[in-house]
Amino acid sequence: MSHSCEVSKGYWSIQPIGYITSPYKQKFGVARQPGLVPAALAYIDLSKEFTTDCVRGLEDYEYIWVQFIFHATVKEGWQPLIRPPKLGGKEKKGIFATRSPHRPNHLGLSLVKLERIECNKHVRIHISGVDFLDQTPVIDIKPYIPFVEAKPHARCGFAREHEQLRVYWSPEALQQVRLFSLDTKHYDLINQSLAHDPRPAHQYKSNKIFVVNLFDWDVLFRVIDNIVEITGIREHIET
Amino acid sequence: MSHSCEVSKGYWSIQPIGYITSPYKQKFGVARQPGLVPAALAYIDLSKEFTTDCVRGLEDYEYIWVQFIFHATVKEGWQPLIRPPKLGGKEKKGIFATRSPHRPNHLGLSLVKLERIECNKHVRIHISGVDFLDQTPVIDIKPYIPFVEAKPHARCGFAREHEQLRVYWSPEALQQVRLFSLDTKHYDLINQSLAHDPRPAHQYKSNKIFVVNLFDWDVLFRVIDNIVEITGIREHIET
Repeated sequence: MSHSCEVSKGYWSIQPIGYITSPYKQKFGVARQPGLVPAALAYIDLSKEFTTDCVRGLEDYEYIWVQFIFHATVKEGWQPLIRPPKLGGKEKKGIFATRSPHRPNHLGLSLVKLERIECNKHVRIHISGVDFLDQTPVIDIKPYIPFVEAKPHARCGFAREHEQLRVYWSPEALQQVRLFSLDTKHYDLINQSLAHDPRPAHQYKSNKIFVVNLFDWDVLFRVIDNIVEITGIREHIET
Repeated sequence: MSHSCEVSKGYWSIQPIGYITSPYKQKFGVARQPGLVPAALAYIDLSKEFTTDCVRGLEDYEYIWVQFIFHATVKEGWQPLIRPPKLGGKEKKGIFATRSPHRPNHLGLSLVKLERIECNKHVRIHISGVDFLDQTPVIDIKPYIPFVEAKPHARCGFAREHEQLRVYWSPEALQQVRLFSLDTKHYDLINQSLAHDPRPAHQYKSNKIFVVNLFDWDVLFRVIDNIVEITGIREHIET
């Protein structure tokens, strides 16, 4: 199988090599960059034609590149100009100067930590620090090569790390953590996800209650004076 | 235009956003990784639908990611196991543990230095340290974000920087440099390209004459005791 053929002049056909299972079930609340939420664990199930041979030696690497399709934004098309949330939604940048999913070809690229590789009926690659929506199609995996790809002092535009917010759990929310038997894995993911403030830029001044869906739960929160207050947790119901 | 649509279940259609003009006219002699040959200058001409707006703010970044198609290896298909040249061609690694072009979907990813952006009739992005074959189709461009993507101490497998060879120009070759009026740009590219030893691993013990095509010239060289000797330069004739 070619897995990349020129369909007609200038069009290429791409077939996913596998799909991701991720705790992020909807766009709102997904980490804005890979690595920001180390507790975001996911795995890639490779299609069965990609056997154990295909990943031989990959475990020697600490980080891997995942190339994927932003499948949830394909229908929305692309835009030449984007208002990056980092800039408070006030300034416009060109699509190729951002990592926005609303881009031509809807191609994504994330550096994630390789946790372990399971080789049973098919190959399952466990990764962490992900920013993938559940069911994301993966189109390539490559090892991270630090001597080529680590440029810690590279000049960059507005894309600097922002300050994390402090997360406070209300007594009601803590009670619900016990009620639903959430474990450390869930607790850490909620804390780390909310510390990065998932609210859209135009809502920064609002202190209304937001709802973020993580795993099978809805987490209710509001932000007051740079503190995220988790006001409650409830089971997520598909709408 | 959607620039990424699901053609039929599980297949995605990708359209190049532009094409690269590079000094590397054939596979033999292309830098093995981006960044190894800073003198390898190239440019990307974006299709005319991608206007100046699309690159607004990109000039604030020092490095950019170029996602592309390994168009020259598509017909050769892909292989689960690869013999990386770094390992002398003796050991096999899984395709996803290497950056080989013989991969499913034939997707490439290179970090290159952004030199400048020209905005005339269309957008032309000048880059350096490239490892692209001439006429490579580009499918996305993204800014390099050091706080997310620079992991200088990441554990990696066999992919370490190798020692560069010393390049020696024979008197005949130096005479031809003058004869063909090669300038510093050409001279640097030849030096830097050959210092990384483009020979295939199974030829490491051979001291036969190799020919590498750079720009419009054929460069003849051999390697003896870790020294590259350039034996001559001649005009390249298309075969």
